[in-house]
Order: sequence, then C-alpha cells, then structure tokens
Amino acid sequence: MKPLFLITNDDGYYSRGLQHLVSVAGEFGDVVVMAPDRNASGLSTSITTSRPLRVHPVGNGAENHFACDGTPADCVKMGYEHFCPRRPDIVLSGINYGSNASINVIYSGTIGAVLEACLDGFAAIGFSVLSHSPETDFNACTPTIRHILQQALLHPIPAGSALNVNIPRLPANQIKGVKVCRQAQAQWVDSLEKRTDPIGRPYWWMTGKFVCDNPPHDSDQYALNQGYVSVVPIRPDFTDYAAFGSIQYFEK
Amino acid sequence: MKPLFLITNDDGYYSRGLQHLVSVAGEFGDVVVMAPDRNASGLSTSITTSRPLRVHPVGNGAENHFACDGTPADCVKMGYEHFCPRRPDIVLSGINYGSNASINVIYSGTIGAVLEACLDGFAAIGFSVLSHSPETDFNACTPTIRHILQQALLHPIPAGSALNVNIPRLPANQIKGVKVCRQAQAQWVDSLEKRTDPIGRPYWWMTGKFVCDNPPHDSDQYALNQGYVSVVPIRPDFTDYAAFGSIQYFEK
Repeated sequence: MKPLFLITNDDGYYSRGLQHLVSVAGEFGDVVVMAPDRNASGLSTSITTSRPLRVHPVGNGAENHFACDGTPADCVKMGYEHFCPRRPDIVLSGINYGSNASINVIYSGTIGAVLEACLDGFAAIGFSVLSHSPETDFNACTPTIRHILQQALLHPIPAGSALNVNIPRLPANQIKGVKVCRQAQAQWVDSLEKRTDPIGRPYWWMTGKFVCDNPPHDSDQYALNQGYVSVVPIRPDFTDYAAFGSIQYFEK
Repeated sequence: MKPLFLITNDDGYYSRGLQHLVSVAGEFGDVVVMAPDRNASGLSTSITTSRPLRVHPVGNGAENHFACDGTPADCVKMGYEHFCPRRPDIVLSGINYGSNASINVIYSGTIGAVLEACLDGFAAIGFSVLSHSPETDFNACTPTIRHILQQALLHPIPAGSALNVNIPRLPANQIKGVKVCRQAQAQWVDSLEKRTDPIGRPYWWMTGKFVCDNPPHDSDQYALNQGYVSVVPIRPDFTDYAAFGSIQYFEK
C-alpha cells in the first residue's frame, strides 16, 4: 500500500505553500489535507476547547481535501481521527511562509501541528521557507522536500521525535546542502507598537525585531545564514534537564 | 526597593486563581496584573498578529490591574513593555484551574506566558492546581506559593530556565512536600467527539482522556500522584538532543 500523508499548515488552506507541499508529497503516496480554513499563524500548539469545530470539504471532498475552522493542532487530531482512510504514515505541515528556525518555533502553528502529531505517536515534519513574499518560488523547495521525504520513508524518524525543516530563500542550485542542527537561542525585541485610534484611544500591534547575534555553529540559524537547509529534531518536552541540579533548593 | 511581580494567567482576569496569586504575591512585593479579559485556556504560546490589542484598566487602573484582549503571551509582552513602572523581578502565571503537568504543558496558556517571559529574559513561574472545581480551595495552595516565592527571591532561578509548579488537590496539611521533577510523557486519546446539530450537520467537541500509565519516579505526574507538589524546570527549546546522532541520514 502507498504511504499516506496527512497534511496541514498554519497559513490556511488557500496558501500556495500548502498546495505545493501537497503536490510534492503526492509523488510519494496518497494525501489527505486537513488545513485551517483561514490564516492561523502564531497559534503555537493551541487547541480549541471553548466552541465546537466544523469541517468543510473542499470541492466535493472526493480528493480528501478539507478545511477546518480550528487551529493547526486541531486539524491534526481531526484529520487522523475522523478523515483518514487509514493511519497516516507521516504528518506534514507547511510549507510555511517565513522562518520557523530558532525561537520562532515556539509561536509557530506550523510546528504546533508537528508537535501535536508527535504527541499522538506519528512521524511528523514541518517545512518552512525563509520568505514572506507572495511571489515566493516554492519550486526552489522541491528538491529539499523530495530528499527529506525519501529519507523519512527509508529510515523512520526516531519515535517521539519530529523534524523542523527550514529552507533558505535561494534558488535550488544555490542551496548548499542539508544540516542537522539544534535550535538557536534568540530574542524578539520591541514587540508591541502603540498607536492611537481616530477617537483617541490606544491600541497596540504585535511587531518586533528578531535578534540572533552570533548563533552557534551547530544551530539552525547559523546553517540558514550559510545557505544550508536546517533540520532540527524536536520533541514536545520543555524540561530543562541542565537546570535540574541547580534548583534543588525548591524541594522541601 | 520591593520586588515587582508581573502577574497573568490563562483563565482570565476574573478567575479566583489569579486573584489568590495576586494576594499571596502582594505579601512579598508590588504587583502589576495584565491578564486576558476572558478565558484563554488552551492557547499555548499563541501571539496575536492579525489584529491590534486593547488594554482595559480594571476599576480606575490605580491598582495596576489591567485586562487585555490578547493571549497570555501577549499579556506578558504588553505588561512589561508598557505597563510596569520598572523591570519586573519575576513574572507569575496562574493559579491555573487544572493540571499543567506532563504533556498538558504544551497546550497551556498559563505556561505559554511563562515561556514568553523566559524568552524575554525574565525569571518566571507558573502555578496550577489539580482541580477544575469552582469551589477549589486556593488557600490550600498558599503555603506552597509562599515557599516557592521565598526561594525564588533568595536564590534566583537559573537564567534561561523557568518553573512549572503543579499543586495536588489536597488540604495544605496533607501535601507531602515539593519535588523537582521532569515532565512525564503521556497521551490524550479519543480527542474529538462528533455530534450532529439540529439541522443534521456534524460538529466536533475537543475532549479526550488523559493516559499516563506508570509515570517514571522522577516525573511530575508521579510526584503529584504521591501527594507532592511538582516543580519542573522548563525552557523554550524543543531540540531533541538525544535524537541528534540518529538522524544524520537527513544531511547531504
């Protein structure tokens, strides 16, 4: 039987990035799409508990493409529990417009979906390209996606782990290769910009400047800066194992 | 100068858990509250990028209590960037109704706020109690919160790390002590319950059963099951360091 891919994203069903990923994954197996029905960027691993969820077939639903009014993580649960004809072999998320390297991963709905899939016991991969432009050339991502899918089908991703793949914004023949990395530390500074509405009341827009000076050579941000694709193995565990010994004073 | 606490939560400003935390923290220093203006549970580390944010003083604002129409992570950024009279010494989140132990941490808006504060360079602590009951006796949490705040003011939390504190639902004198732990692995199964609306269309409610059999003895879930408070050092890094060597086949 062909491999089955469950595919979602956080930019919403109508994103060109999603459609491109669907087309490349379709070379390797069958596809079910369950994607947010609108932009769901920045939703992290949110789940929807305060209202019920609806699912809309795209077209007549015969192609197994669906849009859901929930978050990316909701879409993963919905997709494999209720809309996949068999257990998906790999859950894919993306291609996201914009970097999910370094600490961006923590806000990312694209990666929220990947972490949800990982918690649910699935192999999972998130793809992002370092471009927010509507003219992004997703064809330049195709060789990378083919390589990663081929490898993931040949050598299963270790259980409990998932992949966060970021692709530099370069023509395919200028991408230097693929590097396995760790997540770089960084900061978003000056986050909220204050403005005044027409009747004099304040409001704030989320904005900010990404600061990641001198990222370590084994980090995703460094690899991307050098023109490589970064692959970070991730897992849904926030434990700071290094801090263990130094906080024993909290015990009693 | 007295310590300054910036306090938020995910259950919303009107939660008794928040009000209790404000009152205990007030014994140790000054307090600024910037909390979501409504329930924001399950929002993880979401940030709001698609619309601007508003802030509403509670009462006349003289007590430095504010409600914001954003997520818990938004509230942290808003609080320290625009509403704190000086740099907060510790960012607090909670007291959350319900467990944020084990993998619940990944969905938690309470912990989303803590991770945001950690990324922004602040010491941060999230408090949760293992009860969803509106009659929850938050006074039973007071000795634990006092102990943790005392320790955190005496011996700073290591830079880059934050604390996820879960309190069992027990009278104060039956709580056995405080244990430093790691996050237990677990699963939510059977997540989405299908129903049919009055005109025959399907919808789904997020639900599910938490399964965490035989948690390891050094995990938060085990400590809580034994009647201890669990303290997990956490940090915003998803890298699966253990998987590094075994995924080199993705390189090229």
